[in-house]
Amino acid sequence: MFTSDYLRELTDKAISSLPGTPEAEKLFAPVRYIMSIGGKRLRPVMCLMSCNLFRDKIDEAVMPAVGIEVFHNFTLIHDDIIDRAEMRRGSVTVHSKWGADQAILSGDVMAFVAGECIGHAPEKSLAKAIKLFNKTAIEVCTGQQLDLDFEKKGVVSEEEYLRMIELKTAVLVAASLKLGAIIGDASEKDQDLLYEFGRCLGIAFQIQDDVLDTYGDTKMFGKKTGSDIAANKKTYLLVKALELAGGEKLSRLRGLLGPDNHDPEKKFREVLAIYDELEIRLKAENLAYEYFNKGFQALDNVSVKPERKNELKQLAVNLIGRVK
Amino acid sequence: MFTSDYLRELTDKAISSLPGTPEAEKLFAPVRYIMSIGGKRLRPVMCLMSCNLFRDKIDEAVMPAVGIEVFHNFTLIHDDIIDRAEMRRGSVTVHSKWGADQAILSGDVMAFVAGECIGHAPEKSLAKAIKLFNKTAIEVCTGQQLDLDFEKKGVVSEEEYLRMIELKTAVLVAASLKLGAIIGDASEKDQDLLYEFGRCLGIAFQIQDDVLDTYGDTKMFGKKTGSDIAANKKTYLLVKALELAGGEKLSRLRGLLGPDNHDPEKKFREVLAIYDELEIRLKAENLAYEYFNKGFQALDNVSVKPERKNELKQLAVNLIGRVK
Repeated sequence: MFTSDYLRELTDKAISSLPGTPEAEKLFAPVRYIMSIGGKRLRPVMCLMSCNLFRDKIDEAVMPAVGIEVFHNFTLIHDDIIDRAEMRRGSVTVHSKWGADQAILSGDVMAFVAGECIGHAPEKSLAKAIKLFNKTAIEVCTGQQLDLDFEKKGVVSEEEYLRMIELKTAVLVAASLKLGAIIGDASEKDQDLLYEFGRCLGIAFQIQDDVLDTYGDTKMFGKKTGSDIAANKKTYLLVKALELAGGEKLSRLRGLLGPDNHDPEKKFREVLAIYDELEIRLKAENLAYEYFNKGFQALDNVSVKPERKNELKQLAVNLIGRVK
Repeated sequence: MFTSDYLRELTDKAISSLPGTPEAEKLFAPVRYIMSIGGKRLRPVMCLMSCNLFRDKIDEAVMPAVGIEVFHNFTLIHDDIIDRAEMRRGSVTVHSKWGADQAILSGDVMAFVAGECIGHAPEKSLAKAIKLFNKTAIEVCTGQQLDLDFEKKGVVSEEEYLRMIELKTAVLVAASLKLGAIIGDASEKDQDLLYEFGRCLGIAFQIQDDVLDTYGDTKMFGKKTGSDIAANKKTYLLVKALELAGGEKLSRLRGLLGPDNHDPEKKFREVLAIYDELEIRLKAENLAYEYFNKGFQALDNVSVKPERKNELKQLAVNLIGRVK
């Protein structure tokens, strides 16, 4: 079985060979930039590992896997415009560097570069691959829409929150795995099990991400903690706290979210105190582990020898266990 | 043979049946809006007519044809953000109505709705259809990039201008026709001839469009004339005039394009006077007709009976002859 390091290299090599258009240098410079400033290549590696479950030769899956990564980076460029984000993976965002107009257009072209890469799927898998890709891309846009809608919404339920992260994050991980399985000629049942594995893993990952923003070690996690609380972001933690808090606690929490709160340190400490009283961190971690386990059950049921699943399992464990 | 009116109805019916997502009403409202505020459905009608050249049953081409129209409207939404355009087809633009963030995201989802529609091509044509679609979409983005680059460029050659409109406008018309031919099981040669017909027609159309903005009758043309001159837009007329004008005439023209010119009526009259002295309109119309004729030659060489080509010919003549 191929290791994740090897598959990451394979992906990077394929990415660096993506054709540009000398005719419009300005169009592709931001594309090369966003594709080069890091990222773990998680989705293409998972796609290739999934294919590798079913066959030893995975060449045919490389370009489609790259397509998933290009699509993912396209969403980052446009989301960063919409979120007014200035930094991404420790580098300035595309729109901060080239302006929003250029970021729109260079993002756009990536949508079709991604489609072109997916179009390299072998002919017998092509119809399924294309259908899965477009369906998933539409869902990811829908997830981003729900996330934006939440900003203007007073109350967001746990169910609504979970659906949002499912669409915005989890379905792309799920689709990466399913795509690999499709190209690997897996049975429909195995394709669906791998999709479910990815879906659960993606949801667990996102909940974990919310926990880390508030409780993570800045140095190990690589981004500043507390930014979600500062921005009143409707994370799993806040959604759950607003659901569980009652009476005086709810008033306190709503007060902290109000416009009158000017000291971010104090706000962070006091929101954290409420989270602690409600055991929010524990509840979030339990839910993440529930999804994680559910995902592993799906993977266990995939009809290949257990030892073929080791690389994929290890990757998932590393992903979720990041700072534990 | 099906008439353009019938094919337009068929397209409209298919468009109105495009599935939305009740989950994210805000995401799809702008999509329905842009798809409903008119437009001639030129590209899908051409796609269907092209398919109809080779077979009487064209059902399989309907969804792919709609995909082309969805893609075209996606580019309009994003181009209007970039161009700060407030009106489109007599209605307010999507970003003026819903804001730029929403226009970015609703545009994005259309890129994949378009891909999904193209994915409905019959299995035997799918690989070709997908490849053509993504290649063309990348070219259209490249054309938009060149157009933006021209704004900051002092001198644009006629050759550069023609390449820009080829990419920004003509290749999509060409691809619409080729897509219909692919789905209609045409020979590769006929596919390429139809592509060439569309490419030439698209270039002729765009040159004609430039002529109409300056010389058209506002009432018949449906948009205010003179806006290109007011905005110093690098149209075929201006590019050619800057190439041909020398000495005192060039100084006069450059002066009119400078920032000191404050009376738009006077500017329009004086630029027009220079165009007249250089016979710019005549040169533009001659070039448009050259492309038009070249396109018709390609269509003439398509290996189906001449009478099957009548609808397509009529459509092309109506298109180019709009205000003659």
